[in-house]
Amino acid sequence: MSSLSQRFVLTLACANRPGIVAAVAGHLSNAGLNILDAQQYDDTQTDRFFMRVVFDPVSGGADVEELKSGFAPVAERLGMTWTLRDPSEPRRVMLMVSRFDHCLADLLYRWRIGELPFEPAGVIANHPAHTYSHVDLGGIPFHHLPVTRDTKLEQEAKVWEVIRDSKADLVVLARYMQVLSDGLAAKLAGRCINIHHSFLPGFKGAKPYHQAHVRGVKLIGATAHYVTSDLDEGPIIAQDVEPITHRDTPDDLVRKGRDIERRVLARAVRHHLEDRILLNGSKTVVFAD
Amino acid sequence: MSSLSQRFVLTLACANRPGIVAAVAGHLSNAGLNILDAQQYDDTQTDRFFMRVVFDPVSGGADVEELKSGFAPVAERLGMTWTLRDPSEPRRVMLMVSRFDHCLADLLYRWRIGELPFEPAGVIANHPAHTYSHVDLGGIPFHHLPVTRDTKLEQEAKVWEVIRDSKADLVVLARYMQVLSDGLAAKLAGRCINIHHSFLPGFKGAKPYHQAHVRGVKLIGATAHYVTSDLDEGPIIAQDVEPITHRDTPDDLVRKGRDIERRVLARAVRHHLEDRILLNGSKTVVFAD
Amino acid sequence: MSSLSQRFVLTLACANRPGIVAAVAGHLSNAGLNILDAQQYDDTQTDRFFMRVVFDPVSGGADVEELKSGFAPVAERLGMTWTLRDPSEPRRVMLMVSRFDHCLADLLYRWRIGELPFEPAGVIANHPAHTYSHVDLGGIPFHHLPVTRDTKLEQEAKVWEVIRDSKADLVVLARYMQVLSDGLAAKLAGRCINIHHSFLPGFKGAKPYHQAHVRGVKLIGATAHYVTSDLDEGPIIAQDVEPITHRDTPDDLVRKGRDIERRVLARAVRHHLEDRILLNGSKTVVFAD
Amino acid sequence: MSSLSQRFVLTLACANRPGIVAAVAGHLSNAGLNILDAQQYDDTQTDRFFMRVVFDPVSGGADVEELKSGFAPVAERLGMTWTLRDPSEPRRVMLMVSRFDHCLADLLYRWRIGELPFEPAGVIANHPAHTYSHVDLGGIPFHHLPVTRDTKLEQEAKVWEVIRDSKADLVVLARYMQVLSDGLAAKLAGRCINIHHSFLPGFKGAKPYHQAHVRGVKLIGATAHYVTSDLDEGPIIAQDVEPITHRDTPDDLVRKGRDIERRVLARAVRHHLEDRILLNGSKTVVFAD
Repeated sequence: MSSLSQRFVLTLACANRPGIVAAVAGHLSNAGLNILDAQQYDDTQTDRFFMRVVFDPVSGGADVEELKSGFAPVAERLGMTWTLRDPSEPRRVMLMVSRFDHCLADLLYRWRIGELPFEPAGVIANHPAHTYSHVDLGGIPFHHLPVTRDTKLEQEAKVWEVIRDSKADLVVLARYMQVLSDGLAAKLAGRCINIHHSFLPGFKGAKPYHQAHVRGVKLIGATAHYVTSDLDEGPIIAQDVEPITHRDTPDDLVRKGRDIERRVLARAVRHHLEDRILLNGSKTVVFAD
Repeated sequence: MSSLSQRFVLTLACANRPGIVAAVAGHLSNAGLNILDAQQYDDTQTDRFFMRVVFDPVSGGADVEELKSGFAPVAERLGMTWTLRDPSEPRRVMLMVSRFDHCLADLLYRWRIGELPFEPAGVIANHPAHTYSHVDLGGIPFHHLPVTRDTKLEQEAKVWEVIRDSKADLVVLARYMQVLSDGLAAKLAGRCINIHHSFLPGFKGAKPYHQAHVRGVKLIGATAHYVTSDLDEGPIIAQDVEPITHRDTPDDLVRKGRDIERRVLARAVRHHLEDRILLNGSKTVVFAD
Repeated sequence: MSSLSQRFVLTLACANRPGIVAAVAGHLSNAGLNILDAQQYDDTQTDRFFMRVVFDPVSGGADVEELKSGFAPVAERLGMTWTLRDPSEPRRVMLMVSRFDHCLADLLYRWRIGELPFEPAGVIANHPAHTYSHVDLGGIPFHHLPVTRDTKLEQEAKVWEVIRDSKADLVVLARYMQVLSDGLAAKLAGRCINIHHSFLPGFKGAKPYHQAHVRGVKLIGATAHYVTSDLDEGPIIAQDVEPITHRDTPDDLVRKGRDIERRVLARAVRHHLEDRILLNGSKTVVFAD
Repeated sequence: MSSLSQRFVLTLACANRPGIVAAVAGHLSNAGLNILDAQQYDDTQTDRFFMRVVFDPVSGGADVEELKSGFAPVAERLGMTWTLRDPSEPRRVMLMVSRFDHCLADLLYRWRIGELPFEPAGVIANHPAHTYSHVDLGGIPFHHLPVTRDTKLEQEAKVWEVIRDSKADLVVLARYMQVLSDGLAAKLAGRCINIHHSFLPGFKGAKPYHQAHVRGVKLIGATAHYVTSDLDEGPIIAQDVEPITHRDTPDDLVRKGRDIERRVLARAVRHHLEDRILLNGSKTVVFAD
């Protein structure tokens, strides 16, 4: 979509019933707001309704807090879970990384050229800063928080402190190769995206490319998902694959996988930042562009 | 989507202005109709608005003619081009074919197993019936209308007669290798789908696989489009490609192309039958599922 | 490749050692045979060598039995497992099917137009013939062998008898929804291809599309593999996927899956018929075209 | 493939005749060299034969110049165009770029992590250095060679001087948005790769994404090709596409295109560096991995 002067994004979920669209569209119209884009989904199995609406003021300006106050009664009447955001106020994103920095470098590149609209809140790494010496971190705060089996508890406490103090809205595990504890996963529910280097549910756990090589599959993939306490079981946001052949060694799979991982993770992060993802139990509704 | 007892599909296009969604949703809600699905698109370059709404009656039944009468004033006020259909009344489709019958066989198979909801109005071929002896035409009327350069005018007159008499809503050129005259193309505007065996706009005209082989491209494709008087220039509905290598001969491309052609054509026909395609000048808006 | 008058296909596997290619190429050259195409693969993990060679006589004709006698000493010296075939002698293929006949119809279509070079040895179905009344079986022997939990043993005995008597070289489970017993699987080792309607190793077992829907994946797939006694664990030959969205119901997945299944199965069958697949433990080497 | 201690790559092309493989394999075997991988292609239309062989010494070391001397008589006898290289001696690559640096940043990232085995010979840009301030150029020589319509002749003379003095083996136009003159294109024949941001032959020339938007195609693509004096007509090395919809603005296409461009260009450069590409008239033979 072209970038207009001022626009807002409303997302909502509620029990399905007749008249929801009319109620929402009617409210916006009466409030002098023009719908630019709307997508909806009716999950007939759970009878839940999901919607994403982009709108702008027909004339003059608008204040996001006033818009929220205006919409609150509609939302309350229909029992909605909802958000209303001004996309020009970028979200703060904490990036977490281990040794391999291809996803980190890729996300920062997309941020720099304005493709991904976020504000870096910091980088947390369990490897020292010189590991990433060729990635331009500019003024982004860098936190080296090494971890061993024995210090995991303390390290996670520090990780959480950094996230909290940075006021991060979203945490991206950009090939951060440590499993988050249930406690930390719970604190980050719905706002922590991980990239797993397999086409889930195949090849959960460690060394998925080696697992794929042993099994002899003909495609490899990557999966971006929200982190939950259930390892590699969180709601899936995006997946993609590439063909491979018997000639590909595990190293070849790692190389081909890097390209898949970075584009799948970037897509998931973009969809999150643009409020295109709504949680639907253990699954996601993704109102793609 | 699950198949409900009774549902209707409304499509509309009009000049963009605030309040269209509210007007449509409000009308439907007031008329006791429940929106099951809605997709919209606002072409900011032409300032035209497009919408597709699926709805059902909240209770009891509904009559499509009454629904149309009810909606007509809304449509008139907003200057809409619109359709409102009961998808349980299948459209009549005329299939046209030349020597290669892979698209014909594929469409008929999808029709037989209930995947494509249409009513075959007939098959028009410029080759005799025995060419298709292994395709089960069942009771579908078969019209052998051979054509030469000298008899094109007369043949097209008969083609038109057959289409008209069969009350076909849609004509599908399923590898019908004759160029329609401007006159016939005009009569079938917006309701005649062709499959071209290249990734348009590359390789227009005859023998596209041979052109592709000569040029040495690394992907080949197929394009389904509405037929216009401008050969291979009609609004594109669907496209797809497959990788090829230097080892592929023109015959290999023809073989690989058959798979692409039949799935691209089937997708285009399905989207047309489900009222998912709206014309937008020389382009299409496709509200995909 | 273009079809030449007479050509032969040699496949071989042996422990790797220097000079294999020279030995094979030298033998063929000395025997007045010209290499048209050769592909090889050296599995550095198992140190096994695989090769596929297509050749024709430089002049005059050749007899496949004489060619075999000539090559036998080379093969013996290097400890090869090998085959040498005249591809103009088509293999006999037994097709097995349950209720859904999209793969059956597709394979027969590809056979009829000469795309897949085989000789149908028969169709075995656990549903009665009228289930497939719209598929043109021509003169292909049809065997209705119904099965229940109680009669599985007897039914499989009959299945085996039919396969044996038909002199089938290859058995294709074209959506045959019965698990073969270990005994039957063993008898058909390396010459029985199954299509599983998921992207293995994800969603093994029954109702994979429903499993995929519950898990909320964003791609679905299909896998063609050789049948072994280990259900859904046989050597994978071919796989492919298609994107899906939250809007797709299990029925939509079944529909989209049909297209993936038939093209993946057709590809696997073609590669088998063209001697492009060599077994490498629990994996396959596929010398693709 | 795994990286062995010492290996060599031989590529050759010649008129087809019986016994070429035997001659090559026999020579290598007699010289105490072991074939690790071999791929061949016989263009039956032009009757030209192409081959790529990877080999290592059975024992001890080998010198590339001695290997060349040894092979020269075989090559001469069969009239071959050939190369024999030690891949551990990386080629020198000159990168040329205009304002958009996504391909430049991507190639340098792949070089830094050891994915692309080359030695940067320099960067030539027609924009000043600060345009690329966030790309870590390390010690790579940077040449700002601005160009206008009036100074094109002089600028190209300088470009050529820089390329020549840098001893670059390969020039990569990484979104360098200036058309090379016939003269410069000729000097760089077979060793200059360009990325064109369309699926050629569709949308040649300027602003292909805008052309694609106007035409309403449903897929966009990118093409890597060798540069020839014929603009956008050089031998195609690699192509790929992504689906788009009516909702995508030209800006969206530019964004989606960046991902396609960088992966297609990286693939082409890798294949060139690994001696996988042989020219076949106006086409390429790509012995893919």
